[in-house]
Amino acid sequence: MRILSGMRPTGKLHIGHLVGALENWVKLQEEGNECFYFVADWHALTTHYDDVSKLKEYTRDLVRGFLACGIDPEKSVIFVQSGVKEHAELALLFSMIVSVSRLERVPTYKEIKSELNYKDLSTAGFLIYPVLQAADILIYKAEGVPVGEDQVYHIELTREIARRFNYLYDEVFPEPEAILSRVPKLPGTDGRKMSKSYGNIINLEISEKELEQTILRMMTDPARVRRSDPGNPENCPVWKYHQAFDISEEESKWVWEGCTTASIGCVDCKKLLLKNMKRKLAPIWENFRKIDEDPHYVDDVIMEGTKKAREVAAKTMEEVRRAMNLMF
Amino acid sequence: MRILSGMRPTGKLHIGHLVGALENWVKLQEEGNECFYFVADWHALTTHYDDVSKLKEYTRDLVRGFLACGIDPEKSVIFVQSGVKEHAELALLFSMIVSVSRLERVPTYKEIKSELNYKDLSTAGFLIYPVLQAADILIYKAEGVPVGEDQVYHIELTREIARRFNYLYDEVFPEPEAILSRVPKLPGTDGRKMSKSYGNIINLEISEKELEQTILRMMTDPARVRRSDPGNPENCPVWKYHQAFDISEEESKWVWEGCTTASIGCVDCKKLLLKNMKRKLAPIWENFRKIDEDPHYVDDVIMEGTKKAREVAAKTMEEVRRAMNLMF
Repeated sequence: MRILSGMRPTGKLHIGHLVGALENWVKLQEEGNECFYFVADWHALTTHYDDVSKLKEYTRDLVRGFLACGIDPEKSVIFVQSGVKEHAELALLFSMIVSVSRLERVPTYKEIKSELNYKDLSTAGFLIYPVLQAADILIYKAEGVPVGEDQVYHIELTREIARRFNYLYDEVFPEPEAILSRVPKLPGTDGRKMSKSYGNIINLEISEKELEQTILRMMTDPARVRRSDPGNPENCPVWKYHQAFDISEEESKWVWEGCTTASIGCVDCKKLLLKNMKRKLAPIWENFRKIDEDPHYVDDVIMEGTKKAREVAAKTMEEVRRAMNLMF
Repeated sequence: MRILSGMRPTGKLHIGHLVGALENWVKLQEEGNECFYFVADWHALTTHYDDVSKLKEYTRDLVRGFLACGIDPEKSVIFVQSGVKEHAELALLFSMIVSVSRLERVPTYKEIKSELNYKDLSTAGFLIYPVLQAADILIYKAEGVPVGEDQVYHIELTREIARRFNYLYDEVFPEPEAILSRVPKLPGTDGRKMSKSYGNIINLEISEKELEQTILRMMTDPARVRRSDPGNPENCPVWKYHQAFDISEEESKWVWEGCTTASIGCVDCKKLLLKNMKRKLAPIWENFRKIDEDPHYVDDVIMEGTKKAREVAAKTMEEVRRAMNLMF
């Protein structure tokens, strides 16, 4: 199965990226799928057009993070969107067959606009962003697209665009399926939504010491005021972190019973989480260290992968141009 | 001065294209400007996305027409838009810094939508069409853009986009000026607006015989019912054609006096027009004949010109990508 997914380079990778997306990406890779994973730097401009000072740095960082988390350039194609100009060409062509009102009805359009209301997101780029996303996916004829729940509607739109193109011109595109991650969204360390402005995010490259401090300071069930009060794990972000960091059945039982009967304290529970987090993060930290040994490695991966992606994209575009009877 | 202008391949060239645009293009070329003239095949899709069966044929036809009218590939760069993918890339990048409401306020947006109300023009492509036009112009850093009056607003928007880009990122683009054609718009042979559906258009490649028939059947001042009635040239499309086909001062006086005093008939007047039209059209017909002698000539011109255009566009895009801090 051909898989495609991307991430926007708008900041450092954090543990939400790992458990929400990258782990799933690695799993799909290891299952023998033909995976295309990319840094959506053009997409970053839809919300960050007014500050591009770190765009290139974040782009490189993201690839470095993909590699550290286990995306293997020998097995998957790792590339940067702006290196495959064909995405822009196909997005332009798709824009001819998608109505403005259809784009205005995309739920994330109004949502993100009101969420980031301190920014001017009334741009054409922000409106047509799902069209570019459809081009990203369809240009590789991807069959499966691992996405979060908020992106399912975009895949539906992508399917519509594929159908409409196939109907108007020629049968070129398959209709991709959304692959939903089984992991519920990880909250921030204070139990709220992860957000840079809340300062409640754990970066992937956090030091071991900082991780310890952060976890020990993490919010727990607010109803458990004293050590002797029983807690309810359902109201505790630490419990959610346990799920994301592969708590064993036995440990899980120990935490649940210990918390609800107040036989263990929050610090005991957090120490277990720390142990499990380090088990998952230590190899990634080690990978980062290895990757940094060769200062050219990340750029080499990008060049190589982008070249491969370009070849596939160019082939699809030949079919597209023929179907649309364009001269070039 | 660097000049850029384009035409959409939506049908055959007619005399309106010649006197409204191409004559001016040739003049700008002969004055020694550095001219870029192109076939806007992507733009044709904004209104003709639902029928692309003749797109390639019309594209080639248009270049053939440019050549016949005197655009010289040794002096000007003749190219096809879809052959320079960088236009799509720059349009995508510009879309990030142009607001949707700004595009909805473009006068032609609502105008053409209501004019072509039998078509579904609610597409994103139709909305962002002035952004693509801005990319067409700015990617060559054109200083002058010969346009019709209805396009002046688009040049204003292009200037705004250039300013906004230069302000946000880096001083890359000059602000182009609109070059208005001195010739008023030629009406159709029935005095109404030229329109394929009215059948009132004279194609550039009309045969001499057909031209004679068409002109002799042309509508004149409706108030001049009988030969003995005096006419008013101001109400006569033939008079407008005389202006476009270089009537001399002496002939002009003869027509005006003859018509207003009924000393000449409409047929006399039309015979003079025919003489003047043939003087202008005969060399063009001869050029068409010569061009067709080499069946590869038009394609060779397109390939050569598009290659040149691509080089200039690629250079600008390097500056754009650097200014926006993109990896590729």
